[in-house]
Amino acid sequence: MNVSIVGATGYGGLELIRLLKMHPKFTITSLHTSSKFGEPIHNEYAHLLHEEYLLNKIDPEKIAKQADIVFLATPSGASSELVSSFKNLDIKVIDLSGDLRLKTPGEYEKWYKRTPAPADLLNKAVYGLSEWNADQIKDAEILSNPGCYPTATLLGLAPLYKAGLASGEDVIVDAKSAVSGAGKSPTDATHFSTMNENFKVYKVHSHQHIPEIEQQLGIWSEKSKPISFTTHLVPMTRGIMVTMYVKLQQKMTTEQLHKLYTETYESHPFVRIQPIGSFPATKQVYGSNFCDIGVAYDERTEKATIISVIDNLVKGAAGQAIQNANLMMGYEETSGLMTLPLYP
Amino acid sequence: MNVSIVGATGYGGLELIRLLKMHPKFTITSLHTSSKFGEPIHNEYAHLLHEEYLLNKIDPEKIAKQADIVFLATPSGASSELVSSFKNLDIKVIDLSGDLRLKTPGEYEKWYKRTPAPADLLNKAVYGLSEWNADQIKDAEILSNPGCYPTATLLGLAPLYKAGLASGEDVIVDAKSAVSGAGKSPTDATHFSTMNENFKVYKVHSHQHIPEIEQQLGIWSEKSKPISFTTHLVPMTRGIMVTMYVKLQQKMTTEQLHKLYTETYESHPFVRIQPIGSFPATKQVYGSNFCDIGVAYDERTEKATIISVIDNLVKGAAGQAIQNANLMMGYEETSGLMTLPLYP
Amino acid sequence: MNVSIVGATGYGGLELIRLLKMHPKFTITSLHTSSKFGEPIHNEYAHLLHEEYLLNKIDPEKIAKQADIVFLATPSGASSELVSSFKNLDIKVIDLSGDLRLKTPGEYEKWYKRTPAPADLLNKAVYGLSEWNADQIKDAEILSNPGCYPTATLLGLAPLYKAGLASGEDVIVDAKSAVSGAGKSPTDATHFSTMNENFKVYKVHSHQHIPEIEQQLGIWSEKSKPISFTTHLVPMTRGIMVTMYVKLQQKMTTEQLHKLYTETYESHPFVRIQPIGSFPATKQVYGSNFCDIGVAYDERTEKATIISVIDNLVKGAAGQAIQNANLMMGYEETSGLMTLPLYP
Amino acid sequence: MNVSIVGATGYGGLELIRLLKMHPKFTITSLHTSSKFGEPIHNEYAHLLHEEYLLNKIDPEKIAKQADIVFLATPSGASSELVSSFKNLDIKVIDLSGDLRLKTPGEYEKWYKRTPAPADLLNKAVYGLSEWNADQIKDAEILSNPGCYPTATLLGLAPLYKAGLASGEDVIVDAKSAVSGAGKSPTDATHFSTMNENFKVYKVHSHQHIPEIEQQLGIWSEKSKPISFTTHLVPMTRGIMVTMYVKLQQKMTTEQLHKLYTETYESHPFVRIQPIGSFPATKQVYGSNFCDIGVAYDERTEKATIISVIDNLVKGAAGQAIQNANLMMGYEETSGLMTLPLYP
Repeated sequence: MNVSIVGATGYGGLELIRLLKMHPKFTITSLHTSSKFGEPIHNEYAHLLHEEYLLNKIDPEKIAKQADIVFLATPSGASSELVSSFKNLDIKVIDLSGDLRLKTPGEYEKWYKRTPAPADLLNKAVYGLSEWNADQIKDAEILSNPGCYPTATLLGLAPLYKAGLASGEDVIVDAKSAVSGAGKSPTDATHFSTMNENFKVYKVHSHQHIPEIEQQLGIWSEKSKPISFTTHLVPMTRGIMVTMYVKLQQKMTTEQLHKLYTETYESHPFVRIQPIGSFPATKQVYGSNFCDIGVAYDERTEKATIISVIDNLVKGAAGQAIQNANLMMGYEETSGLMTLPLYP
Repeated sequence: MNVSIVGATGYGGLELIRLLKMHPKFTITSLHTSSKFGEPIHNEYAHLLHEEYLLNKIDPEKIAKQADIVFLATPSGASSELVSSFKNLDIKVIDLSGDLRLKTPGEYEKWYKRTPAPADLLNKAVYGLSEWNADQIKDAEILSNPGCYPTATLLGLAPLYKAGLASGEDVIVDAKSAVSGAGKSPTDATHFSTMNENFKVYKVHSHQHIPEIEQQLGIWSEKSKPISFTTHLVPMTRGIMVTMYVKLQQKMTTEQLHKLYTETYESHPFVRIQPIGSFPATKQVYGSNFCDIGVAYDERTEKATIISVIDNLVKGAAGQAIQNANLMMGYEETSGLMTLPLYP
Repeated sequence: MNVSIVGATGYGGLELIRLLKMHPKFTITSLHTSSKFGEPIHNEYAHLLHEEYLLNKIDPEKIAKQADIVFLATPSGASSELVSSFKNLDIKVIDLSGDLRLKTPGEYEKWYKRTPAPADLLNKAVYGLSEWNADQIKDAEILSNPGCYPTATLLGLAPLYKAGLASGEDVIVDAKSAVSGAGKSPTDATHFSTMNENFKVYKVHSHQHIPEIEQQLGIWSEKSKPISFTTHLVPMTRGIMVTMYVKLQQKMTTEQLHKLYTETYESHPFVRIQPIGSFPATKQVYGSNFCDIGVAYDERTEKATIISVIDNLVKGAAGQAIQNANLMMGYEETSGLMTLPLYP
Repeated sequence: MNVSIVGATGYGGLELIRLLKMHPKFTITSLHTSSKFGEPIHNEYAHLLHEEYLLNKIDPEKIAKQADIVFLATPSGASSELVSSFKNLDIKVIDLSGDLRLKTPGEYEKWYKRTPAPADLLNKAVYGLSEWNADQIKDAEILSNPGCYPTATLLGLAPLYKAGLASGEDVIVDAKSAVSGAGKSPTDATHFSTMNENFKVYKVHSHQHIPEIEQQLGIWSEKSKPISFTTHLVPMTRGIMVTMYVKLQQKMTTEQLHKLYTETYESHPFVRIQPIGSFPATKQVYGSNFCDIGVAYDERTEKATIISVIDNLVKGAAGQAIQNANLMMGYEETSGLMTLPLYP
């Protein structure tokens, strides 16, 4: 099965290349960018030395002829136009940007400060939270791949919302991300000397992933309310940890909470629930498609604490995109993705 | 004024040496440890090469003759005995450990899993949260220096509790610390290859600083309730950020919240309130005694978000200890401490 | 083909598990350690959560029955005894320690300060520098896997020595390693707060890899002389860079030098020569089995500068061990190892 | 004594502010930049929150009226013009750039690829290697502050050259720098995700500090020859280590070498020679004006190894500039600079 990658030189694109190279069924047939046509990608990225990938123009008709799936690892804003250009062609589209995630155009406009994608595209796009949306994903022609924070947050909150134990009121999500989440473009905020030995908070109450999370929570629970969501930057390259504090509808024990999570995810190989009393660290999923979750119930404050970690570039981007591609093609969900984390 | 340091080779002790060396009024007269007597401290710590400090036995009577103040930078468990041995001598004692912080012996036993200090010592010890306890600190003979997390948390929560805006219910404190907070002893958890490129959660609902924070909140508000408090480790050497989510007794605007904080701390030079819309990063206080605080009110969730940062070894330990020593000696609170952060 | 790993919980062992899990032909049949028998390895290493590997006693006869190859990822000192115990059993042995690398027992004693392995073992053991020793490796029963520094250094110097251009006089090797090279045991030197934001030199003129390098150089050139070799620690987890300054027997241009390297390694897929004017960084081989080399001739000083990088745990340990196992089994040298580096 | 800083918002400028704030005799009277006039510097740098420094235009006549010394922390290229504009005014000038360091205009043109400063300026400028040029520095009107690499290298090589033990032939200087040496402007090379967990070599045989080092070596030894000099980037913010391999004119012991260094620097408080067998790490000088040096003689290769470390922003820039200002003003060389390194 042939795949093309548009936006191949961003971090999402590079990770798609790394993961697809190990995939038993997908073959990268072409890479596409908005510049440097004809150059080998290793001119810019020496880790790809000796790989024979050249950069090509973005020509949707040509791509559709060569490939069965196209991955759009392009920034928000660019993706919606690109998806439109592929709409009537014979190719499945997986978009890693935020452009097709919010079903209400007004919400996109409010949080992204940009023109939303056309409503028909939004309607057609399937939200690719693989563990919870597999049935729809299998039939998707246009797939909207979830954001990194929403992936870690939603996998962490799902069991509570689906069981009717949480409704959003007094749900606090304290999120921490590695710096690669900010992409490959150098900025003051991501300058090494600025960010090293530094821990920052950013986008307090204003991150564009908030409506994406709340939209899905609203699907799971009609009573769902706004959540508190704050994002921080950690001086490391890869990894997200989300710490969630949830006031439940009833008292529970840690054992009950743990049983709920274990059972919910027992048939989902990429979600690993920690033993009771043990909690995850980001490094334990480094380079892998796992989402590891630890849970505890605090009797003193009568709140559940849920902690989930992912590699933001794998389960938070390229890995989940390939997981979705597997589902869309009828392959095993885990195909090409069950590699172990890099440790230490 | 002569000072001695017991526990000179721990991180708290080293930081006392660095800061006291710049102090215009205090002179280090002796260093004390539990081993390596007679050796120069630079045998172990090359950054002190050429400094003429030798390590000495801990002889309270001798220390009391030489020094006006003794700093105990010793671990919890060791300090309470040491303080007892200085009790009837003519010397002021500043203890950086957790041994004298909890007024209720049972609480100490429960959270520290150790025998508490005698009740008379606990009663005599003044809790040294400099900005809020200056009157008592001025007359203290035995001073109990606050923990790093409590310092950042209490300075952040004080304006809300003192104004009757918060009562503890639904107060979530998500705390992140650099690794030096774990001290100088190598462990699996603080091994470089384990901790580098890693972000961890630890002591979920069980950190021994919880009762210290709640004790002070209880002094500020009779209605005070247990808080949610979770601690994380950041792959960096120095710095603490505490992100606090507080349900207030009434609706507010960010402007009102900001005004409250600015006015509360306007006569306190070490607490710097960020402009509206701006939030602190740990690096902006690196190596300094500042506590920087940013505030925001989220109308969507009707909660206040308070973010405070300190250098855990300075304002969270040695710096605040010297600030307290200044107060105890009748010096300017800022004496020797108004150096700028190291940046970048 | 079944393989067992002895010393599975060290960093070399963990990396063998990660790489063998991706190998199309080798299956891990058992893990062995000196303690915690019967426990799953994920009790200690959460990145292996859900993997079903239990830790077993080291029983050579039993191992030889189950497995075709045993990897000894054990420390120097332990390996030589272990290899002896496998000697008369029907199993191939790959030893990752330094115990079998030095052919002269006295040299081992001098540099390792330990009792050397028996001479017959030393004679039987084949030195596994894969790119240069493939013929012998193919027939090896006992393979001694090269050290991390020697791998990067020898691959960098080989073309010059083999071409008679260098003889060791005035060969300066300035080596820099990530911290995982020091293993998993916490020490003062590898404590996070000690090593972070720090760059250190260590073992000046005394690293035990010196005789290993010189032994191989002596095989390549009879005139070979002692080299200057100094090692440094870089505040990162993985990666080695070796910068080599070599006075050549004749003047050359950078182009000639580059041609020599390109031609020497053109049939060796794991050695990638940088284009002229471009030099490697450790991150470009992160997690991979590549050794990337850049070369330049400095006309001002009439010296060649050769710079090579590897991932110390892959090409410098577990990766090369598997490369050697491939050769010993008659598989493609690259089998299971052509995964791309993790970037960023 | 009043001082002004031009280029206040670069890393050199920020470090001058930090150090001058602690100086007992210098007062910062104004900060100057090429933009953002009238804004407080803490708009850009939050670590300076509450400091009352505003940014001003660069008006040499006005500066000369207010200040006794002006520090130019401006980039190479900008400085030479600025120095010219101060030439006939009543103010001492300390230039931290490379513009006035090379006495031969052609050399500047060759290595910096820019138009050199006028010859009269070059002649008038005194090279401020404080430990070795104090007599000239005392009378300087225009001072050219040394580069970071040259400071660490020249302090390391000086005893050998002055004693006639080295002549440049077969002197190998392998230099490693933290990332702040690249300045505050974000680039691909200094992007956090690029540089973290990475060790790079750069400017092989082509760093512009080479002629600066060789110029001074030529003053010390008529027979001086080109050196091999290669620079590397370490994933940390501050610190330089230079490892030097020197073929001596005669055999020596480590003891003799150590005695030479100890005696050479015994009256220089900022240069600290390590005990025999001990070698420096960059962190032991973090934030301080020290240059720490370790030495060893390798009998196997008959070469001396000299290792020196500095904080690139202090002894390698702002600290040495203030040390020179002290000398120019007739103060104690150490005035305001004897603070201890920040550790850990």
